[in-house]
Amino acid sequence: MKRTIPAAIAALIASTALAQAPAPAPDPAASDPVALGWMQGSPPAPDKTVRWADGSFFKFPQTRWSFAHWNQLIPSSDIWRGEGRVSVLPRAERNEMGGIKFQPANGGPTMTWEQALAANYTDAVVVLHRGRIVYEKYHGAMSPQTRHIAMSVTKSFVGTLGEVLVAEGKLDPTAKVAQYIPELKDSGYGEVTVRQVMDMTTGVKFSENYGDQNAEIWTYSRAGGLLPRPAGYTGPQSFYDFARTVQKDPAAVAGAFRYQTVNTDVLGWLIRRVTNKTVGELLSERFWTRMGMERDAMIAVDASGNEFAGGGLILTTRDMARFGEMMRKDGRFNGQAIIPKAVVDTIRKGGDKEVFARAGYATLPGWSYRDMWWVSNDDHGAYAARGVHGQALYIDPKAQVVIARFASAPQAANAVTDPVMLPAYRAVADYLIRR
Amino acid sequence: MKRTIPAAIAALIASTALAQAPAPAPDPAASDPVALGWMQGSPPAPDKTVRWADGSFFKFPQTRWSFAHWNQLIPSSDIWRGEGRVSVLPRAERNEMGGIKFQPANGGPTMTWEQALAANYTDAVVVLHRGRIVYEKYHGAMSPQTRHIAMSVTKSFVGTLGEVLVAEGKLDPTAKVAQYIPELKDSGYGEVTVRQVMDMTTGVKFSENYGDQNAEIWTYSRAGGLLPRPAGYTGPQSFYDFARTVQKDPAAVAGAFRYQTVNTDVLGWLIRRVTNKTVGELLSERFWTRMGMERDAMIAVDASGNEFAGGGLILTTRDMARFGEMMRKDGRFNGQAIIPKAVVDTIRKGGDKEVFARAGYATLPGWSYRDMWWVSNDDHGAYAARGVHGQALYIDPKAQVVIARFASAPQAANAVTDPVMLPAYRAVADYLIRR
Repeated sequence: MKRTIPAAIAALIASTALAQAPAPAPDPAASDPVALGWMQGSPPAPDKTVRWADGSFFKFPQTRWSFAHWNQLIPSSDIWRGEGRVSVLPRAERNEMGGIKFQPANGGPTMTWEQALAANYTDAVVVLHRGRIVYEKYHGAMSPQTRHIAMSVTKSFVGTLGEVLVAEGKLDPTAKVAQYIPELKDSGYGEVTVRQVMDMTTGVKFSENYGDQNAEIWTYSRAGGLLPRPAGYTGPQSFYDFARTVQKDPAAVAGAFRYQTVNTDVLGWLIRRVTNKTVGELLSERFWTRMGMERDAMIAVDASGNEFAGGGLILTTRDMARFGEMMRKDGRFNGQAIIPKAVVDTIRKGGDKEVFARAGYATLPGWSYRDMWWVSNDDHGAYAARGVHGQALYIDPKAQVVIARFASAPQAANAVTDPVMLPAYRAVADYLIRR
Repeated sequence: MKRTIPAAIAALIASTALAQAPAPAPDPAASDPVALGWMQGSPPAPDKTVRWADGSFFKFPQTRWSFAHWNQLIPSSDIWRGEGRVSVLPRAERNEMGGIKFQPANGGPTMTWEQALAANYTDAVVVLHRGRIVYEKYHGAMSPQTRHIAMSVTKSFVGTLGEVLVAEGKLDPTAKVAQYIPELKDSGYGEVTVRQVMDMTTGVKFSENYGDQNAEIWTYSRAGGLLPRPAGYTGPQSFYDFARTVQKDPAAVAGAFRYQTVNTDVLGWLIRRVTNKTVGELLSERFWTRMGMERDAMIAVDASGNEFAGGGLILTTRDMARFGEMMRKDGRFNGQAIIPKAVVDTIRKGGDKEVFARAGYATLPGWSYRDMWWVSNDDHGAYAARGVHGQALYIDPKAQVVIARFASAPQAANAVTDPVMLPAYRAVADYLIRR
């Protein structure tokens, strides 16, 4: 079976790359998937069909349709919401918010919130203020019921699970990974601690440089079944198999932060090993069945049926907002404690700023990284889950604001859109804090 | 990527084959997927892993796990249940029913209902009597929440949709297929009517003989992406593309019933063409959102994103029972008319018995076929949806009984298990009719 897939697919498994010179971007309005007719018709015409096998599902502008239909392209496991009632998100809409003005950080002209959303290929956005929906929009292929691929926002869900297990004494952050997973003893993870995995300071050799055909990202993708395997392939059969082949990077600076997706798969493995449940089962038990989520979520699985902890979560915009609101409320939601406050405190406190600064994220000055969350360390204490192509769950504790946003920007790196979207999020918070 | 798949996969797309001499069957209890440890462990051991790519997902006994986890193996589209309340199925359990005795039709010794279920690899069963759950069991990988692949039971859902569109005047059964789908004008469907498609009397050339490597079933499977495509494959890209290549069978007897899965895909295409909605959207709009279904269903999609109308429905046992109960109640369920009574009447009336008899289904004497349903024409007016490996939705109007059953029998053909299961269903009905 021919399965040629463009290099772009590899971006699926990564998140924020370093800043790069933005290429001229296509017109967002002109890429509306409904206007373009992707997968419309009975059946869609061949040139309007989006497929996994030919790689079209990861080409822009097809991504404006495919990100909202991920389970139709990739096998996935379901995250059951249980039988409870949906938790009500009260509505107090402020549609004037579309006109909130702000100054982008890239020297561009003043923009409005509405302009920022449109210019950056927003598929859906829900803004909560003190737990009420104040702004909610769906575009293109999205509706309130539609589930969108969260990309690396997934990591923050998994990192939160990991920190919960630490709080419960089931996972010792000071223990070596190999203590739980002897299979990794001889890999680059042999001497790595659980905490280092959770904070991405593992020092393993894993390049996400898509320009380098020898980068580990390619083997990783083939192992997980995201990329085609050549005939007679005998390499690793899953993300976990791949993790066993990961080497220590002799050039790595001890304690340095390096964003490497494979670390999240190892965290997923740790979580499974200490609970003997799958990540999807735990997301269901701990969050979906207890938070009154609106719809079952899904999580993409690799060629061996293991969940893609690094980037496979598929969920509705409102349910992503509910998770953010739970974090904002110190772990409480739907009338109960979902996770310990101490877990939220640990995440909000962030990681080592010096270590983070050395990683060179030009659009994230003063930020740090903790438990698979990005922490701004600003005067509002804002922190975020972030995924390629514009996925974001932004929490501003001081302003009591949560922003859940799905997008399908043509460029993977959030560094491209950060100069507009981060000031936009802050402007929304600044507007609401006065209300 | 190596994608060698055993011939057995082709059974996925077929349904009841002709009777064949049963091979010695493995011990059902010994094939329990939990006892065997399929996909257990964190992660599962390689020899306990069930994969799509290596074909293990369609080998017995792995099927006892995979049939209950189809969406983790094959991409699928979701059939939304909407936001309404779950419709209550009152409980009036009669666990003594396990001891109901009956005489198998194969000359074997008297069996009990419980023995018949166990001996025939039953994964789940729900029996309704006058709309109340009187018997409900889950085995192996199944739970009330688990969704199981329905195989060709799917066809009866699609056939019902088709008959509903006929009743609404949207689909003319006397019209030629090509009138709606000009793309099929030059195929074997060129002179075929909609009614002939719905009743599988199309006279097209399509062999489901898995023993013949030149049988159309193989091209069909490659077209839909169920089977690997050789390098440089330039054949049909979807089930619909394949349908365009189907030829008229010069040897076909006019009006003869021949069970050919491709006919259901053509019906799915007709339904999409006249509604401009996908089959999944219609199943959601017409049934799932209105019947108080317990969970979203799913339907497997082919390599071009088209639903597999011939066998891709994935749903819970109770929701399958709800559909049966709606049929039993002349189209009414959950306090409203779901489909017109005339549609149910048309189906119950069945097709031409003479035509059916000539097809040689030894285990179904006196039966006929209508709108993708199998009609017994017995004194109870029983009729059924049937899928390979034991899937069944059996409706006995006189006894006011509905039996929804999922199974993972090692042999595809229901002819192998019919001599036990059909008398068993009838015995259950006979028992309940006196209550």
